[in-house]
Amino acid sequence: MKRTLIEELYLNKGKEVKIQGWIHRLRKLGKIAFIMLRDRTGIVQCVLDCKAIDIKGLKQESVVEVIGLIKDKQGADEEVEIEVRALNVISNVKEDLPIEINKSELECNLDTILNNRVLSLRNIKTNSIFKIQAELAHSFQEFLINEGFTQVFSPKIVAEGTEGGTELFPLQYFEKKAYLAQSPQFYKQMLVGAGYERVFEVAHVYRAEEHNTQRHLNEYVSLDLELGFIEDERDIMALEEKLLKFMLNRVSEKCSKELNLLEAKLPEYVDNIPSLRLEEAVEILKTKYNRTELVNDLDPEGERQICEYAKEYLNSEFLFLTHYPRSKRPMYAMPAEEKLTHSFDLLFRGLEITTGGQRIHNYEQLVESISSKGLNPESFNDYLQVFKYGMPPHGGLAIGLERLTAQLLGIKNIRETCLFPRDRERLTP
Amino acid sequence: MKRTLIEELYLNKGKEVKIQGWIHRLRKLGKIAFIMLRDRTGIVQCVLDCKAIDIKGLKQESVVEVIGLIKDKQGADEEVEIEVRALNVISNVKEDLPIEINKSELECNLDTILNNRVLSLRNIKTNSIFKIQAELAHSFQEFLINEGFTQVFSPKIVAEGTEGGTELFPLQYFEKKAYLAQSPQFYKQMLVGAGYERVFEVAHVYRAEEHNTQRHLNEYVSLDLELGFIEDERDIMALEEKLLKFMLNRVSEKCSKELNLLEAKLPEYVDNIPSLRLEEAVEILKTKYNRTELVNDLDPEGERQICEYAKEYLNSEFLFLTHYPRSKRPMYAMPAEEKLTHSFDLLFRGLEITTGGQRIHNYEQLVESISSKGLNPESFNDYLQVFKYGMPPHGGLAIGLERLTAQLLGIKNIRETCLFPRDRERLTP
Repeated sequence: MKRTLIEELYLNKGKEVKIQGWIHRLRKLGKIAFIMLRDRTGIVQCVLDCKAIDIKGLKQESVVEVIGLIKDKQGADEEVEIEVRALNVISNVKEDLPIEINKSELECNLDTILNNRVLSLRNIKTNSIFKIQAELAHSFQEFLINEGFTQVFSPKIVAEGTEGGTELFPLQYFEKKAYLAQSPQFYKQMLVGAGYERVFEVAHVYRAEEHNTQRHLNEYVSLDLELGFIEDERDIMALEEKLLKFMLNRVSEKCSKELNLLEAKLPEYVDNIPSLRLEEAVEILKTKYNRTELVNDLDPEGERQICEYAKEYLNSEFLFLTHYPRSKRPMYAMPAEEKLTHSFDLLFRGLEITTGGQRIHNYEQLVESISSKGLNPESFNDYLQVFKYGMPPHGGLAIGLERLTAQLLGIKNIRETCLFPRDRERLTP
Repeated sequence: MKRTLIEELYLNKGKEVKIQGWIHRLRKLGKIAFIMLRDRTGIVQCVLDCKAIDIKGLKQESVVEVIGLIKDKQGADEEVEIEVRALNVISNVKEDLPIEINKSELECNLDTILNNRVLSLRNIKTNSIFKIQAELAHSFQEFLINEGFTQVFSPKIVAEGTEGGTELFPLQYFEKKAYLAQSPQFYKQMLVGAGYERVFEVAHVYRAEEHNTQRHLNEYVSLDLELGFIEDERDIMALEEKLLKFMLNRVSEKCSKELNLLEAKLPEYVDNIPSLRLEEAVEILKTKYNRTELVNDLDPEGERQICEYAKEYLNSEFLFLTHYPRSKRPMYAMPAEEKLTHSFDLLFRGLEITTGGQRIHNYEQLVESISSKGLNPESFNDYLQVFKYGMPPHGGLAIGLERLTAQLLGIKNIRETCLFPRDRERLTP
């Protein structure tokens, strides 16, 4: 007999089926036992007669196979249950569970949750986070492919850093010293110039940042895109707005069960995301929030406050900040008037989820910009090559997948939106 | 005026349009000049009057913008050309091109091609390779999502190797020693047991192999999948057959232009892929190919020969080899009778492109298998946890994306199917 998934049971009322999964909960009431069986698609109640079927030794979280009849569940409209005819244990639990999985919330601290990651992921709320994350990654790709982008895979083992050599993980590459890539920045620009014009990458990036905060991971998934033949950074911002709208619509469509479970509220709309120049934002924070000490940049508290402001006065949970000063941006950022750049950040519910902007495409200008940052242009020969041979105006952005997931679902610590986080202390599991 | 892509020109005959791209070729005939303009979608001929438009200083591969009228191309059915009204240089070429891009084939050696990667990728044949590769990656994901798989992102910085600790790149992770992941094997199994049941990952893996061959990369993209509730390895093989069929159909549909350009011939069909036990294959090689020295394994020459055999006698360019001995497989391979395993390789046109199989799901059996390989089960505590708490029978496979691309397109050296390869010697660009 072929396996039937739990979400398909309602289509097969009255039939005998085989279902397989984990024992989510087990309860005995006199001669009757109730098993809540869980597979990847849902949970169903299985009712069995303890005289006919031996449930001694059966443990919560064991993997079992149940053959039974699909019946309407008593007292519950539209729900079904299984009248068990046979039950086989496929894989038994050997030890007491170190954490309780089948509660609505995992009632333990984050370290315990992460130390027991495969078990904590069986909690249906925790499990849902990563189904939503997968849909975010998938819809990012779908949207861009439809917009003529090519998916690329750039190396993560690199000879030089992209942002000036700090915060790199060093690596022994045979006889050579190498580093883990901080971002695919150089490669995605090079591939725009290699004729692909529009490229995206979904891959890990690595930051050897020493601080251990709720919003940083040392290894995270970066949703990167880069495109040529743009006017300026506003083309990138317009693209991101369409992209996010598509992604959130898809999540809303495909993950309604998971969103409900997590009581997550998606932004009501993603149209006309408001935009403030960084200096305007700083001015607002000074005036409205008494943040007189802020100069030309926002701290995490400032990001939260300006998002509060945007929600109240601009009616948006998203906010673009633009015109960052050159001193705060990498050497490839396209300069704008008055020591500013054609760059932007996107804040969402109090946190930066994207950095993007137009890049320099003129060779001499780029060499000069590298030097002005105190870096040696010769270290960037491979990167610089494409700028000698015809490079279109271009720009791009990167979205932190774990951050986007966290902000969307109202999760405070980004470690909870990473399957197996790597932070200052954590290297396992 | 909005940009029109070259592939859309034929839809706009008679209209004035703006096109942008690289000067693929430039030719002057008396007072008339012909520019072949290339964008990401194709090449079009632009005709201009040298008296009206100054083309002095215009160089091949410069990025330009052309405004002109779309006309039927003289003497060519269904083709169009552009009668140029205005031409602006967007980004000029600064130096002589180190390689010739606009020939049908790049006439230089592989090192030169790779050293000048962004330029060599502008060659339209070379460029096409990675559009096909992107479609392979995309269709892999599409198929699996439709089959109920969840995309996952597992860490590439790990505390232990998966296959016994050899061929690992060491890494300094703050105060700790770490390694680059050789495969997502442990994580994908753990995630099956975490309740996702069916997971896939598209990500880099790292192998510090010392040898420098045409078919090895030290960093490559692995298309990984793993699924639970299987009977045995035959379920995985059946899934791979459906998967490959889907992928090749998609490539055939979406990349016909690129396939034609590369003169690539897809396998005629991917149904009923034949299967030989390893020992049968060795026997055939002994008898038919006089390979009397082979014992229980194939060398690269043997892989080519058995594929030749399969093509001639089994009418297939694909061939499954099954029943590898335990001594040749990792500790997680599910044992079969007579010191064999429930594992398989898939060969395609003379090369192994997949390794897969059923895995051990019983905790005690797995601990014993780890010990029997001379490894210490305590080093695998994080991995082993899930096997204590209910693990379904499961298995999976990995496809090397660059190898699949190479075999599909008849490319001998796998470096040509990697955008920026990392091998024994190469760490740049």
